[in-house]
Amino acid sequence: MTDPLRLGIAGLGTVGTGVVKIIRQKANLLAARTGRPIEITAVSARSRDKDRDVSLSGYAWEDDPVALATRDDIDVFVELMGGADGPAKAATEAALAAGKDVITANKAMLAIHGQALAELAEDKGHVIRFEAAVAGGIPVVKALTEGLAGNDVTRVMGVMNGTCNYILTRMEDSGLPYEEVFAEADALGYLEADPTLDVGGIDAGHKLSLLAAIAYGTKVDFDGVDLEGIQRISVEDIETAASMGFRIKLLGVAQMTGRGLEQRMSPCLVPADSPLGQLQGGTNMVVLEGDAVGQIVLRGAGAGEGPTASAVMSDVIEIARGTRLTTFGQPAAGLETAVPAKSSTPAQYYIRMVLADKPGAMAKIATVLGDAGISIDRMRQTRHDDTAAPVVFVTHRTSRDNLDTALAAFPGTGVLLGEAVAIRIEDV
Amino acid sequence: MTDPLRLGIAGLGTVGTGVVKIIRQKANLLAARTGRPIEITAVSARSRDKDRDVSLSGYAWEDDPVALATRDDIDVFVELMGGADGPAKAATEAALAAGKDVITANKAMLAIHGQALAELAEDKGHVIRFEAAVAGGIPVVKALTEGLAGNDVTRVMGVMNGTCNYILTRMEDSGLPYEEVFAEADALGYLEADPTLDVGGIDAGHKLSLLAAIAYGTKVDFDGVDLEGIQRISVEDIETAASMGFRIKLLGVAQMTGRGLEQRMSPCLVPADSPLGQLQGGTNMVVLEGDAVGQIVLRGAGAGEGPTASAVMSDVIEIARGTRLTTFGQPAAGLETAVPAKSSTPAQYYIRMVLADKPGAMAKIATVLGDAGISIDRMRQTRHDDTAAPVVFVTHRTSRDNLDTALAAFPGTGVLLGEAVAIRIEDV
Repeated sequence: MTDPLRLGIAGLGTVGTGVVKIIRQKANLLAARTGRPIEITAVSARSRDKDRDVSLSGYAWEDDPVALATRDDIDVFVELMGGADGPAKAATEAALAAGKDVITANKAMLAIHGQALAELAEDKGHVIRFEAAVAGGIPVVKALTEGLAGNDVTRVMGVMNGTCNYILTRMEDSGLPYEEVFAEADALGYLEADPTLDVGGIDAGHKLSLLAAIAYGTKVDFDGVDLEGIQRISVEDIETAASMGFRIKLLGVAQMTGRGLEQRMSPCLVPADSPLGQLQGGTNMVVLEGDAVGQIVLRGAGAGEGPTASAVMSDVIEIARGTRLTTFGQPAAGLETAVPAKSSTPAQYYIRMVLADKPGAMAKIATVLGDAGISIDRMRQTRHDDTAAPVVFVTHRTSRDNLDTALAAFPGTGVLLGEAVAIRIEDV
Repeated sequence: MTDPLRLGIAGLGTVGTGVVKIIRQKANLLAARTGRPIEITAVSARSRDKDRDVSLSGYAWEDDPVALATRDDIDVFVELMGGADGPAKAATEAALAAGKDVITANKAMLAIHGQALAELAEDKGHVIRFEAAVAGGIPVVKALTEGLAGNDVTRVMGVMNGTCNYILTRMEDSGLPYEEVFAEADALGYLEADPTLDVGGIDAGHKLSLLAAIAYGTKVDFDGVDLEGIQRISVEDIETAASMGFRIKLLGVAQMTGRGLEQRMSPCLVPADSPLGQLQGGTNMVVLEGDAVGQIVLRGAGAGEGPTASAVMSDVIEIARGTRLTTFGQPAAGLETAVPAKSSTPAQYYIRMVLADKPGAMAKIATVLGDAGISIDRMRQTRHDDTAAPVVFVTHRTSRDNLDTALAAFPGTGVLLGEAVAIRIEDV
């Protein structure tokens, strides 16, 4: 196999530029590792004239990514444009129809259209690879698809949005409220154009849904992800959790339960001294648990030019070496439709509320909890003035249904000031 | 590709038994993930009658692993016997000569004979895979060979012998001396038959040499590994290091320097709050650093039936899927001979010694350090009685040669009681 592998790259932002740099700078290394030259034939991007810190000389230019994707002189279409629909999807479909393999970093597109695209690819014997779509430079798609393929996967967890972890870490370190730290992150350019993708957990939820499909042999089901962002996390919750030995993370969890596939992306308390709890700043971490292997923890940069380009290149090299894997680790046509089981596994919960300082207030709250079948592991009153008593409960393990029953009943007691905050405590 | 993949498994200890269990219990899952049945045709072990907690019914039995390896009705020879030479090597060579692929967990055999075996395999178009040989269940061979293949690897580090990390952790937790904790570990069955393989760093050195070959495109060079075991680590060093914010780990480091390939397996001080520093007990950790990806940390069980069998199965699945990778990530015939550069990178060092309590003692030691070109970052006297003053230095960054010069000159001062202990501080 000494024919060159010819790439067409659509999208020349941070990641695309990084991929071009690696291919230009490491030609010998890549040829040694794959047994053949890796060449860029043509590229496409929105603006031809932008200064990209890398030469594009020698590459044909296409204004239209669909035209790029269907060129006779490319073997692999590398889709780095982003966006669930629009040009990215049109060009990916065109590439597959034209007999190309596809490499993409596009988590949104695969979370929504991954099943259809995988079937389209596999019908024709083509592959779609997407290491860069999940957790940046961490080779987690390969770890799950290949390294843990002899396991029944029991749980997949991950902190997979660096921006959210940066915001939560910065809130803890600075004591500044969410709104101020969000504005800082925005000024630093850390947020997506639509910041809800980050802070609403959508981006991380896309990634989780892709890992769940591989782990459980089910069709990607992003709609089945129980999503909750970090917008409502307060410094008070972060500090209270810290004083009890926890940190708050936007944590994704996927596990197959007796009632179906549970996928959650939501703020959780984790022990501060666990690997997930120790993860500060923009770094990503994925925890894979299998019945044979036990727990595997993977940690690395979740974004940025080099790490994401490294992941794209791992897919390029895989295809150059002649490895042909199915998109989700088994034939897409045989994947089962997931039965969503939202937050069905029981857990301990952290509940914080402010009580009016009047006799019997605590008794009323305790009664609501008891009536909902929730027993209390720990309780603490964090501060106190003449009119308001902030209290925190850590419950024993209970169901989300029981918790929701209690949360719905609290206002009727007439002793709450404001709303109760409840955050799941994940066993990690 | 719906023909079954037929395995011959030699060695039915902990790992072999684990592999048999997975293949028996997960037939449907494995077929879904590979597109074909995975079957065991024949097995071989020293004792046929041992109770193995798994049925061997339906498998042919071979007393001679060479006979097993060359059977017409196997596609892959799975070598789980161990030992650098002897039956493992003979059977592996026979399997390759007979046209079989080989999967092995045998780090010693590959560290010594890996180059010759890889050339033998690749001459004939066969593959040798060895995920289980390094760091148990952690899919680090795949992460390095595939996930980071677009990187120039800048450093590989690892805590890859769980027994040593258990001993060091237990010494810290209990305050018991090395000899007592060693005896405990022995009684618990944690040690190899020849314990020097563990505590002398040999086993971990084997693993490091395999990762270095993949990382740097060099022939496996176990002889080039600068080996130092944990036998001389004292509770005093562990406690002194801890009081300065460090932990002592048996740490493997491989990096390409201007003078050649540096491979070290030796006790090092690492910051207690780093991922490596936080690794307690028998768990393994490998840190991979690449110019594009930055730092990737992988953590998991380094031994045991399930984790090691999981790694073997990842290779079985790889071959069943039709993936054909070279042994060390590029053709063995093209690997360069490593130029060994033992401990050439400069570092800070921890030096502990006991000084006779007489005037001018400290001045003499300081003069030796200065004459060797070593400057002092921190110094502390840990205790003191009428006749002896234990002191600890942390040097600024210096070369191993300078350090050795100073260590050789200390006795001539006439102020040392006993020997000085020097331990490298690794930047992690």
